[in-house]
Order: sequence, then structure tokens, then C-alpha cells
Amino acid sequence: MPKRTSHEESACPVARPLDVLGDGWTLLIVRDAFDGLRRFGQFQKNLGLAKNILSARLANLVANGVFELTPAADGSPYQEYRLTEKGRALFPVVTALRQWGEQYFFTGDEPRARLVDRAAGAPVARVEVRASDGRVLGPDDTEVLLP
Amino acid sequence: MPKRTSHEESACPVARPLDVLGDGWTLLIVRDAFDGLRRFGQFQKNLGLAKNILSARLANLVANGVFELTPAADGSPYQEYRLTEKGRALFPVVTALRQWGEQYFFTGDEPRARLVDRAAGAPVARVEVRASDGRVLGPDDTEVLLP
Repeated sequence: MPKRTSHEESACPVARPLDVLGDGWTLLIVRDAFDGLRRFGQFQKNLGLAKNILSARLANLVANGVFELTPAADGSPYQEYRLTEKGRALFPVVTALRQWGEQYFFTGDEPRARLVDRAAGAPVARVEVRASDGRVLGPDDTEVLLP
Repeated sequence: MPKRTSHEESACPVARPLDVLGDGWTLLIVRDAFDGLRRFGQFQKNLGLAKNILSARLANLVANGVFELTPAADGSPYQEYRLTEKGRALFPVVTALRQWGEQYFFTGDEPRARLVDRAAGAPVARVEVRASDGRVLGPDDTEVLLP
């Protein structure tokens, strides 16, 4: 059976975004953008990623509306990659992945980057799936209805 | 600069899990497991994925403690892939990705798979990032503190 190369016809909302997010670097570029990085050279330096690979990933993210290219805010000749509303809407995805990483990929006292609430200076709460009335839901409390 | 092949030394909890989750099929295998699939043939049929690729992905997920291999619940000779606690803890990640997909990868009336609360039969609430006191946080309300 052939390997599918696209999920664009899938009825599943988990599958379709993976055409954009289905490689590890892409989510790290988005993570960097949440941390304030905007220029090709900044992403390149922080990720240590080959320029041709970074260039392809950024072009894909622009083509899919996650980033938009804008003139530099400081008037310099550089262009900046800024998250669109669609890109910023990945915040819960990246944060949920971050918390899973914190829980299972670090030992107790291992140094790690921490996401904190600026106002309180405290770690953000655990991202949870909830019912419309606020009950916390686990996988067994839910089901997927096919169209 | 060489392409890194592993994020295992990274201090970032977003990066480390991507060694496990950094390809599109892996999260779809986990999605299928949340939907109750447990056998190689079930995953293979549902994903339409080449057996050698599926086999490699499942082996990786077992090696990383997301799945465990267990004897079939019905006493048949098949082995079953069951999500561990670590695997089940991906529920908020998959659900946040699902909701992003619903919002940006489907037109208004396009048929889609829907995740519902079994008790209420209603769609689950939007997954949000919150402060410890319950305030909803956006990316600009947070910052990452490096170790």
C-alpha cells in the first residue's frame, strides 16, 4: 500500500495540520517565534539548522499562513517572519507538548527552560481537555464521531 | 552547520519530545490508539501506511514508552499496542492539534470528525493555556526562562 504524502483529504482535524507540522523542526521554529525570534538569521543561529532546510520550512509555513513576511520593525533591510493569527493559535499545542516534555523527558532536578506567566512569575497551569461545563476529560471520557 | 538529528540534550521541553513525535505519522498512530485501535493490522488498515514504516514507528513508540506491547485481551495470538500512562498523557497535545485543525483546515460546512464528551454528547471545550489562578494566557502573557 503506498505511503500517503498528504492528509489534505482526511476528515480528521488531527491529520490535516500534520502536512504543515509533521516534522520536528517546524514546531521548533514556531516555538522560537513565540519566544520573539523574527529573522532568518535568528532562527538559523538558535536552531543550528542548515540554511536550505530552514528556508524550506519557513517557506512552507508562510505558504500555509502560519507566518507572514513583513518589513523589519526597525527600518533595517531585513524581512521578518511574524506569526499570523493562525500561527499564534498554535500556542496551546506547543504548550501542551512542552508540558508533556517536562513531565517525561527530564529528570527531577535537570535544568530546563520554563514557561511562566509574566504577571505572576509562576509556571503556567497544566493544559487540560475540558467539557463545556468545565469537567476535566481524559481520553476515555470522549469519543470521535465520524462524519 | 550540520543538521541535528536529536534534541535529547536540549534544555527545551518542546524540543525533546520531537525525537519521538517529529513525524506526522507518529501522532496519527497515537490518535488511532485514543480511538481504540490496538493491533498492527488495525493501524495499518486505518492509516494506509506501508508495513515497514508503521513497524518502525510502532517500535520507536514502544522504545520510548508511549506504547506497551501486551497479549491480546481476547486470548487470540495477536499482540496489542496499548498506550502507557505516558502515551495517554498526550491527550491534550492531540486535542489541541485537533482543534487547530478544525479551526484552520476545514471550511464551515465541510464534514469532519468531531471529538465529543461521552457524558454530554457535546463537543469538548477549547483547550486553553491558563495561569495557576485560571486566567487564560496568550503567548504575549508568558515568557520562557532559560535554565
